[in-house]
Amino acid sequence: MKRHFLTAITLAVLLALAPLAAAADPLPSWSEGQAKRSVVDFVQRVTTAGGADFVPVSERIAVFDNDGALWAEKPMYVQLAFALDRVKALAPGHPEWKDTQPFKAVLEGDMKTVTAGGEHALLELVMATHAGMTTDAFAQVVKDWLATAKHPRFNRPYTELVYQPMLELLAYLRANGFKTFIVSGGGIEFMRPWTEKVYGIPPEQVIGSSIKTRFELRDGAPVLVRLPEINFIDDKAGKPVGIQMHIGRRPIAAFGNSDGDLQMLQWTTAGPGARFGLIVHHTDADREYAYDRQSSVGRLDQALNEAKTRGWTVVDMKQDWQRVFPFEIKASVSGTVSYLQRIALPPDASVAVKLVDISKQDVPAVTIAEQKITHPGQMPIPYELRFDPEKIDPRMTYAVQARIEQGGKLLFNSTQVFPVITRGNPSYMEVKVEPVKKTREIEEKNQAANHEAEST
Amino acid sequence: MKRHFLTAITLAVLLALAPLAAAADPLPSWSEGQAKRSVVDFVQRVTTAGGADFVPVSERIAVFDNDGALWAEKPMYVQLAFALDRVKALAPGHPEWKDTQPFKAVLEGDMKTVTAGGEHALLELVMATHAGMTTDAFAQVVKDWLATAKHPRFNRPYTELVYQPMLELLAYLRANGFKTFIVSGGGIEFMRPWTEKVYGIPPEQVIGSSIKTRFELRDGAPVLVRLPEINFIDDKAGKPVGIQMHIGRRPIAAFGNSDGDLQMLQWTTAGPGARFGLIVHHTDADREYAYDRQSSVGRLDQALNEAKTRGWTVVDMKQDWQRVFPFEIKASVSGTVSYLQRIALPPDASVAVKLVDISKQDVPAVTIAEQKITHPGQMPIPYELRFDPEKIDPRMTYAVQARIEQGGKLLFNSTQVFPVITRGNPSYMEVKVEPVKKTREIEEKNQAANHEAEST
Repeated sequence: MKRHFLTAITLAVLLALAPLAAAADPLPSWSEGQAKRSVVDFVQRVTTAGGADFVPVSERIAVFDNDGALWAEKPMYVQLAFALDRVKALAPGHPEWKDTQPFKAVLEGDMKTVTAGGEHALLELVMATHAGMTTDAFAQVVKDWLATAKHPRFNRPYTELVYQPMLELLAYLRANGFKTFIVSGGGIEFMRPWTEKVYGIPPEQVIGSSIKTRFELRDGAPVLVRLPEINFIDDKAGKPVGIQMHIGRRPIAAFGNSDGDLQMLQWTTAGPGARFGLIVHHTDADREYAYDRQSSVGRLDQALNEAKTRGWTVVDMKQDWQRVFPFEIKASVSGTVSYLQRIALPPDASVAVKLVDISKQDVPAVTIAEQKITHPGQMPIPYELRFDPEKIDPRMTYAVQARIEQGGKLLFNSTQVFPVITRGNPSYMEVKVEPVKKTREIEEKNQAANHEAEST
Repeated sequence: MKRHFLTAITLAVLLALAPLAAAADPLPSWSEGQAKRSVVDFVQRVTTAGGADFVPVSERIAVFDNDGALWAEKPMYVQLAFALDRVKALAPGHPEWKDTQPFKAVLEGDMKTVTAGGEHALLELVMATHAGMTTDAFAQVVKDWLATAKHPRFNRPYTELVYQPMLELLAYLRANGFKTFIVSGGGIEFMRPWTEKVYGIPPEQVIGSSIKTRFELRDGAPVLVRLPEINFIDDKAGKPVGIQMHIGRRPIAAFGNSDGDLQMLQWTTAGPGARFGLIVHHTDADREYAYDRQSSVGRLDQALNEAKTRGWTVVDMKQDWQRVFPFEIKASVSGTVSYLQRIALPPDASVAVKLVDISKQDVPAVTIAEQKITHPGQMPIPYELRFDPEKIDPRMTYAVQARIEQGGKLLFNSTQVFPVITRGNPSYMEVKVEPVKKTREIEEKNQAANHEAEST
């Protein structure tokens, strides 16, 4: 009989886990609401075989703006911060910059003068810092800079200033057969060294602005040299042109955040069949920034107007995103431990509560954090598990486990799964524990079920 | 005991099939030799996990020239044939062409004058026929033309003038985790409408020469208009530039056929780690064309010299390719049917020989062709199976089966697999048949094996 009970228990645990896995939310950082629903609805329509809106995998192309759509663009474009730092780094080899604008202003930290120089000044800065070396050398300069540069407000590497909901969206689309591309006004070679690692987007799926390059043999070894000459500006009406040049077919979904994305959204959503356009509206000054119609960086005006007439989804960052950045994970889980039996806890009992990673089946759960409570008093027993957010991977599943011991002897433990933190699960959890004897467990489970049924 | 024998037989058949499946040749149209070996060796080295030359999947990028490397470029580039036909088709709307060169010469079929006009004349023809419409309209024009235009020598659609060995090579590389790109001097939008269907290469993996396009709203509907202005020439030193622009990382394998591919081959093979360069040398005037150092189209001179110093593989089309085009499949299989037993065939026996597709396991073989021989005389009995080459898929496996009957009663049948036609198998096959009684079969197999062992 014992084996039968164990099998029953195993089955019960598996049954408890199964719906959890099936219903796993692919967009846990998105609040429930119109924005999230519109994304999920679109993906379901184009992937439903036999449906009216079905799109074959080869045509599931999605394009994403980068600055302000996938990572932060305030207080200035990251690439401008890079150019300014490069001017400072290269200044010793350019004594003439001390007396030449816009370099003089950059070296003196006089951003007002730099900005007053307008587009021409910016172009000069870009050419002086982005050209004159080989493509390989430039990629290395970008990687080296990103490894040390920090965002002025968040004091973190820029590559951590990416939007968690958009990372989830990229992964969700790819899991549904989409090929994801970046289509940015930023420099194509400024993005490629890190987009694969940060977004899962390989270099060949990055489209951006570019300068010209020239092929040369140097002592028989071929190199590509970056020239101080504009090749292509992938912004505004340039975005559909860049898309056609690189992809050669019209995307079916486009994601942007500013008027620079207007034509890309128009081009994408005007095609036949099911189409999707989305604009990230920066409305959250607390967690990120709030800006739109009046902003010099990332102005969102005409595209916001057209969103209504063209049926594009507008994300209200404050409302629609539960979390903005990946590092914003709450660093503790709390709740209570209790059992249903009407018996008192011995005064010398102790309670152990653990936060564990239960993502991998068939291997023991990995402990992330643990709390031991001696002299727990009577139920419910409050607990708080503090953990290192670095140890949390938003794709994994975590749970709280509890056990009550007396003099080294196990009295109660948790047999159900209590998922927390990631994948839409809470950070507060009431953990039920049960007596260890298997036969009593089953009986009491039934009683508990009856009890619950009666009380509902 | 019967079941044991059957199991033994099943096992024997499975064992006979297993090495066939395992050793299935991915490049059946390539002759055994240095060229084929170099390809297979490279692929094995970069895909062997833990090996010194292992390359992760994301970096397995292979680039292919198109004209002369994937399809025929003689007697003229296909795109030039297209431009000439377009001039004729558009002439009614351009009465001035009757008196303007190079159009006058084209309309009069005077190719000498057209050619004498040099690059400038060609550029004029391209702009007049490739610009002035939307990208969608141009793609449709290309598709429509390809559906009816025929190659002047082979009298077949141009898309059938693709090289069977290169199709196999593309499939082989992709099966080994490679991403395959076209890098052609030809027009990017001239290739994209058909490369996915013909080569399995999607539009976003096609790189080529281009004219500029402009984004416009026409009555609120966005279009991309093709402009009569060169954007990029993807030839010679332009190829590495195009590769960097579109792919953003250096390929590890490059395949070309002319000096137009020289810099692409240099750029690809000069990178660190395992690299592979290959040149198709057109040496077969009978099956295709023979040309190299003196040819105006597809000149192969300097790249042929550098192949030696840089270690690139040179394919001798005549020697290294057993088949050039997919339509060249031999349309019959012949051979003999015989058995080992020293018994005479009854005069009223009949022999049935079948060509079958045995690619699909667990389903009955599909018959492609069949021959019935009455009054077969004595062994060996010659047969010839004629078949429709359209029914042969080079990726499938075909075999010959034979049975000998007398008055509706089966006397002998073939139990071994005799593979033919595709995957490097011959078109001549000596088929052995065996008596139907299972117990005798096993005994006589052993005798036959002993007999063979004695005679070798």
